[in-house]
Amino acid sequence: MADDVPDAGARSVPSLDALGLTDFAPFLINRISATYSGQVQQMLRSHDLTTPKMRALAVLATQGALTVNELAYLAVFEQSTMSRTLDALEKQGFVQREQRAGDMRVRELRITQAGRAVFERFWPALYGLYEDMFAGVEPGQREALVAALHRVLDNLDRKGGLAG
Amino acid sequence: MADDVPDAGARSVPSLDALGLTDFAPFLINRISATYSGQVQQMLRSHDLTTPKMRALAVLATQGALTVNELAYLAVFEQSTMSRTLDALEKQGFVQREQRAGDMRVRELRITQAGRAVFERFWPALYGLYEDMFAGVEPGQREALVAALHRVLDNLDRKGGLAG
Repeated sequence: MADDVPDAGARSVPSLDALGLTDFAPFLINRISATYSGQVQQMLRSHDLTTPKMRALAVLATQGALTVNELAYLAVFEQSTMSRTLDALEKQGFVQREQRAGDMRVRELRITQAGRAVFERFWPALYGLYEDMFAGVEPGQREALVAALHRVLDNLDRKGGLAG
Repeated sequence: MADDVPDAGARSVPSLDALGLTDFAPFLINRISATYSGQVQQMLRSHDLTTPKMRALAVLATQGALTVNELAYLAVFEQSTMSRTLDALEKQGFVQREQRAGDMRVRELRITQAGRAVFERFWPALYGLYEDMFAGVEPGQREALVAALHRVLDNLDRKGGLAG
């Protein structure tokens, strides 16, 4: 009777066709990320900001003082991009460097009042885009979505860590 | 009594601090997209594939014949990147160009048997990554997630369309 089941091995990995390309969650997440980022980039132009600058300011405005590495991780940019971005932001007077309390060897970045003001002028537009993109997704659904996304990110980070 | 309510305007836009940066869904989506894409890129190396090539093959393997524009949209790449990618895939014999049935002026791309075989060799690894990243997210939660993501993408596409 086992011979009546063809392709048992192949069946354990459903085809992308069977899953449906447009229902494949990573595909949706990539599309949303790209479309959202494109729209944010357009909005940033009138604020004389770039995406790395805005992300660095957003992270520093909410997370306190951080090292370049911590910032690059949270802002999702290569360390080299983040370094250049922070140099530019420092020249503009939007961030300042300081030594970490308790460990003089560690240099951290902190947002200045001027930097915070720049982010706060942009934030209502970013929040408006967020509200528009989640229109019709009820609070309970948003919470479930955020919980699932946290789980997915944890899984990916753990996998990336194990892989090297 | 109305005077007792300070900052009513500011209160209608909660701060990013109040929302929590790491619970802000666009932040999570960008982080997942970047981390996932980095891991896919690493996996592609041993298959002698790039991300644009793999995405083009994935889309063509599931959606039939498409124009360059349709492919660029679905694969989330600029049209110029997609054009170069398709030229390379054509040279490798993985896609072929043909005229659309019923409209001789429209040129479409179609995946070849060799191209399909390349994608099918890679697919189990991509599916494995998908299963790993969604470990612990139950089928019902996945369906809810995909439904919410579709809604978000529709909202973004509509907004992008209206904005220009």
